[in-house]
Amino acid sequence: MLKPLGDRVLVKVRNEEEKVGGIVLAGNAKEKPTSGEVIAVGPGAIDHHGNRMPIDVKVGETVWYDKYSGTSIKYNDDEYLVIRAGDLLAVED
Amino acid sequence: MLKPLGDRVLVKVRNEEEKVGGIVLAGNAKEKPTSGEVIAVGPGAIDHHGNRMPIDVKVGETVWYDKYSGTSIKYNDDEYLVIRAGDLLAVED
Amino acid sequence: MLKPLGDRVLVKVRNEEEKVGGIVLAGNAKEKPTSGEVIAVGPGAIDHHGNRMPIDVKVGETVWYDKYSGTSIKYNDDEYLVIRAGDLLAVED
Amino acid sequence: MLKPLGDRVLVKVRNEEEKVGGIVLAGNAKEKPTSGEVIAVGPGAIDHHGNRMPIDVKVGETVWYDKYSGTSIKYNDDEYLVIRAGDLLAVED
Amino acid sequence: MLKPLGDRVLVKVRNEEEKVGGIVLAGNAKEKPTSGEVIAVGPGAIDHHGNRMPIDVKVGETVWYDKYSGTSIKYNDDEYLVIRAGDLLAVED
Amino acid sequence: MLKPLGDRVLVKVRNEEEKVGGIVLAGNAKEKPTSGEVIAVGPGAIDHHGNRMPIDVKVGETVWYDKYSGTSIKYNDDEYLVIRAGDLLAVED
Amino acid sequence: MLKPLGDRVLVKVRNEEEKVGGIVLAGNAKEKPTSGEVIAVGPGAIDHHGNRMPIDVKVGETVWYDKYSGTSIKYNDDEYLVIRAGDLLAVED
Repeated sequence: MLKPLGDRVLVKVRNEEEKVGGIVLAGNAKEKPTSGEVIAVGPGAIDHHGNRMPIDVKVGETVWYDKYSGTSIKYNDDEYLVIRAGDLLAVED
Repeated sequence: MLKPLGDRVLVKVRNEEEKVGGIVLAGNAKEKPTSGEVIAVGPGAIDHHGNRMPIDVKVGETVWYDKYSGTSIKYNDDEYLVIRAGDLLAVED
Repeated sequence: MLKPLGDRVLVKVRNEEEKVGGIVLAGNAKEKPTSGEVIAVGPGAIDHHGNRMPIDVKVGETVWYDKYSGTSIKYNDDEYLVIRAGDLLAVED
Repeated sequence: MLKPLGDRVLVKVRNEEEKVGGIVLAGNAKEKPTSGEVIAVGPGAIDHHGNRMPIDVKVGETVWYDKYSGTSIKYNDDEYLVIRAGDLLAVED
Repeated sequence: MLKPLGDRVLVKVRNEEEKVGGIVLAGNAKEKPTSGEVIAVGPGAIDHHGNRMPIDVKVGETVWYDKYSGTSIKYNDDEYLVIRAGDLLAVED
Repeated sequence: MLKPLGDRVLVKVRNEEEKVGGIVLAGNAKEKPTSGEVIAVGPGAIDHHGNRMPIDVKVGETVWYDKYSGTSIKYNDDEYLVIRAGDLLAVED
Repeated sequence: MLKPLGDRVLVKVRNEEEKVGGIVLAGNAKEKPTSGEVIAVGPGAIDHHGNRMPIDVKVGETVWYDKYSGTSIKYNDDEYLVIRAGDLLAVED
């Protein structure tokens, strides 16, 4: 399985929305965040004192993110998103 | 419910002003900040010493922000804004 | 009343100069700073040690700033400017 | 043999995908990460206290990265990629 | 009188050179620094430990700066320049 | 002889590849790193504690770098490259 | 005489090469560094602990720099260059 590195999180995308090409829209007018399930969590980035910084989401949680965040990875025919934890907007309670 | 992550705040938008497309206007000539009610507050960003940095607004307060700040999220048919606490301009007393 | 957040200051604009559209002019050739009265001062930004950094202006003082700095807020039919303290150029003695 | 410097990793590229010219596509719409085998690992970057920062991958592991990351090097007729460890997205378990 | 804020210095411009519009010329080919007299010095910026950082020029000294640095202020019919101390190039002995 | 300053290294370029004008190509599609011999090593940059940061290459070693890195210097009719140590990609064993 | 401020160095330009307009050429293809004699050295920049950072060149030394670095100053009919010490590439032994 894929293990995300650093402060990254591996997400199984839930809803595949309509793509609007590769164009980044300015402002918050048109960007529709999507959500997905956390599959794996990286070890965390290393701070200036050599300590790992915690990541605030756990495996199994549903997270929301802007649809232009992260990088898509196709692995064993499944579509995942590798996204920095700091780019996650919210988590469902 | 949605819990904002890091230094983010979840806001229920109060007044939906006229959109002027997705174009960011330069300067402060035309940008009209909007306001909303704080619904949830994130745990805060982590500083260089591993401590959480406080967020200066509380649930229930009315906050003002530039209308191009933050990211809109539609959740259970309601429109929210996820915005970094540092992008909030002012809070009503 | 509005309370500015972080290192921001709420200013009541004094002189409303002629607008030259929303275009930022390069260099210092045409930018005419304006001045206003400080109405409220934020708690200050938090430094890397978790302490509030002081803000060098007080309520009632007249401050000068570049006319493209800050964000305009209309609140109770009055026009204010929310501006970061670090963007204030000078204060009248 | 080539020894990567600093926080860099030397990777033997596994799958050579179709090139889409030298144009960087915006967003995650079209970018297909690739994978490769770690051949050598640099000593790590030096942090603000003069210590080496660890690199989270080891020789022999399969790593995934965005196809526009890193720099290609042709050495002894073999194609390698020199990439910063922080640009690696994930490692296979 | 105007008191500059932070790491800023108030300068009375000495020689008003011919303007070449508001266009910033690239490189050092055409930029002619100008000089002026220091009228007032700000309290200094605050460093990461909460201390004021010293400013290396004093009232009455003649300083040199790139003509595109700083912001012009008209105050009581006099033209001043508010400029960050770090943008001053040299001081006359 | 020339002594590089700070974190810079003086390199005698080995192979002069075909130039493709002064245009920086995006991505790693076309950039062909070159190699050269280290002629001299700077004293190292100074970190936040006032200490010199070590440079990981030595005189006589063969280093590889992206062909758009560094600055060419003609000195006594020889062509050298002055390049920051952090821009060196790899060193030959 | 002119005293450079901060981490700046005052250089008497040695060879005035042909100008190619004010256009910055990309890459290292066409940029020809020039050299000059150090006339004066600033006190050094102040680091995060309030200490002056040393400057690695001395008055009388010949330094090399990229011809687009620094700012030209005409002072008493002589042409000088004020350049940050960190932009100096090398010093002649």
